[in-house]
Amino acid sequence: MSGPSTAGTRPDDVRRHNRAALLRRLHVNGPATRASLATALGLNRSTIKALVDSLAEGGVVEERVPARRGGAGRPSLLVLPRARAAVVLAVDIRVERAGMALVGIGGEILGRGSWNVREGIQQPEEVFTKIVDTSGPLIDELAVRPVAVGVSVPGVVRHSDGYVHEAPNLHWSDVPLGAWLSRALGLGVHMGNDAELGALAEHLRGAARGSGDVVYISADVGVGGGVISNGVSMRGAGGHHIGEVGHMVVRPGGLRCYCGSYGCWETEVGEHALCRALGIDENSPVGTIVAELRAMPAGTVAGRLGEYTEWLALGLCNVVNLLCPQLVVLGDLFTALPKQLVARVEQLVRERSLVSRALGGTRVVTSALGSDAKLLGAAELAFETVLAGC
Amino acid sequence: MSGPSTAGTRPDDVRRHNRAALLRRLHVNGPATRASLATALGLNRSTIKALVDSLAEGGVVEERVPARRGGAGRPSLLVLPRARAAVVLAVDIRVERAGMALVGIGGEILGRGSWNVREGIQQPEEVFTKIVDTSGPLIDELAVRPVAVGVSVPGVVRHSDGYVHEAPNLHWSDVPLGAWLSRALGLGVHMGNDAELGALAEHLRGAARGSGDVVYISADVGVGGGVISNGVSMRGAGGHHIGEVGHMVVRPGGLRCYCGSYGCWETEVGEHALCRALGIDENSPVGTIVAELRAMPAGTVAGRLGEYTEWLALGLCNVVNLLCPQLVVLGDLFTALPKQLVARVEQLVRERSLVSRALGGTRVVTSALGSDAKLLGAAELAFETVLAGC
Repeated sequence: MSGPSTAGTRPDDVRRHNRAALLRRLHVNGPATRASLATALGLNRSTIKALVDSLAEGGVVEERVPARRGGAGRPSLLVLPRARAAVVLAVDIRVERAGMALVGIGGEILGRGSWNVREGIQQPEEVFTKIVDTSGPLIDELAVRPVAVGVSVPGVVRHSDGYVHEAPNLHWSDVPLGAWLSRALGLGVHMGNDAELGALAEHLRGAARGSGDVVYISADVGVGGGVISNGVSMRGAGGHHIGEVGHMVVRPGGLRCYCGSYGCWETEVGEHALCRALGIDENSPVGTIVAELRAMPAGTVAGRLGEYTEWLALGLCNVVNLLCPQLVVLGDLFTALPKQLVARVEQLVRERSLVSRALGGTRVVTSALGSDAKLLGAAELAFETVLAGC
Repeated sequence: MSGPSTAGTRPDDVRRHNRAALLRRLHVNGPATRASLATALGLNRSTIKALVDSLAEGGVVEERVPARRGGAGRPSLLVLPRARAAVVLAVDIRVERAGMALVGIGGEILGRGSWNVREGIQQPEEVFTKIVDTSGPLIDELAVRPVAVGVSVPGVVRHSDGYVHEAPNLHWSDVPLGAWLSRALGLGVHMGNDAELGALAEHLRGAARGSGDVVYISADVGVGGGVISNGVSMRGAGGHHIGEVGHMVVRPGGLRCYCGSYGCWETEVGEHALCRALGIDENSPVGTIVAELRAMPAGTVAGRLGEYTEWLALGLCNVVNLLCPQLVVLGDLFTALPKQLVARVEQLVRERSLVSRALGGTRVVTSALGSDAKLLGAAELAFETVLAGC
């Protein structure tokens, strides 16, 4: 990002900003001494003391003697976030199943719920009812009060109010799910595109930790992209996520896609395409696909999945040329791709992408959080506002 | 953009930030009363007074009675930036020519220089020498002292030091032009990709004024993209620009591109492709291409440029799906495309792009700044640091 803003800053904002920054640091990076917090935030120790004392008074953090001592002298106290001081409800809606979790400060999963969709399509109203009906008992069981809700949806979502414009693989369009949930649960509901939230989670807690410029590619039936730029989620017009990569046309005149176009990248590398490349039924369950991938002798990968690898690399070259990441994280089903296939894709991207060459080679890796990435990302989306208000 | 930062803020930063914000406001939006500045910046009038007084003392702004009075009573003084209080040297390097200008605060072009490249390729050393040799007399003639330099290059450029990794259509790679210029001119040199700077200029002073999320497409021999997100230039890893759209593969197995790939969008819609579509020599000068486009009877456009229109739309659908702009600005040669062709492309993008549909339709327009976009963008890049130091 570049370019200064034209908005003024009031000194009143500073304290609130610093308090949120400190809590966010603890939330993302875990327990820390006051001294290391002072260094990390670029603030003096008396400012840090005042902030920690005020957060401790509110029960949001506590201070403890660390378990292991380093060196001589009195050990420095560690500042820890208290997981239950603020809990969010995270929901991950997918084509074939949905999951939810209650997540505390620091990213700890306190409890989970889920349901499967065995036949046909999940109607929006059903999903809404399931979320409400599943979350109630979970909240009671754990005896917590969530303060916000984060929801991941595989589609184009308006951030301001969680309006789902279009979720092609769910066959949803114009669903005001955010408003429904907000009314039913009586909480702030924050909704985002699934790949955007996967990117956020991998950046904060997964394979992209420490990388500021990242593209995460989600891959179930649909293929999506989420972009982290300079450490924050990149959004476009109307606050919508950036990186609807699955619907990039890479094969003009190719197969028809759910979205209405022909030859979308999703139709060449998504779940169905992977099944075709493996020579198994297009509608095979994920477990079968993963088992098939794991059972492949290393020597057969290049031959059997050669053309698939080319399509994966072609789309990723475009993604890297357009979005300029230092790291690409392949999520969901792609996590199960054979290592030598991923290495080959990385090599092709480095050779063919002008931008990758300029960057000295983009890294391509598989997800560290696997199927939890979107759920954890939904929690982080909810935490963005929660931490500022603690 | 989303996601709070984890950096602390010191109250000392506030005054400097506000001073730069006020000057930036005047630079971009032109003369304004103190009252309107207070409203625009969200600061109180005594703070504005102190800032204006201090800038006026430094000779950076002045206050004047406006030429026309609105209503009764004493007219409010207008605060004006003084163009010559800070002047930057802007340079626009292209394949067939290069231009430069001295630009003052407020965006006023005080004087220009240029040179043409009649035969063959511009060697980096030649371009460097030309810049130095042309700028000296221009600076003397205008009796100004530029305080920074901005340079536009059609390639992948490292922002930190103006290192040109690759500029395929110039046949440049690994050129430390920024360091050369900085040493020779004794000034801070800020370099950027040409399309990125075109986007910046159109956003601040052209067709994209008031639009926060914009993609600008440059089109000479090469095709490039620049992205403004939430009002600022979007950058990826290493501070490189985002949107190398010309090298997005849209026709696997298509023509070989300069970049080494096959079937890049640039080979389907760039200057040479447009010549082929028009049935004229691929190496026709720009003037001939523009004349040919202007002479086309409206009724013949769909027939003669139908396939070209499809390729343009296909790539733009991908661009909109990946980058989520509310507005696409077609620059350079594309500015001369027939109106009905641009309208048809806009219609196809609205129909076919999932993201455009969600946004209620992306607008597609031609550049307002035309061939000056990149030059003015280079000036703005230089001003980003200059204004903060005034």
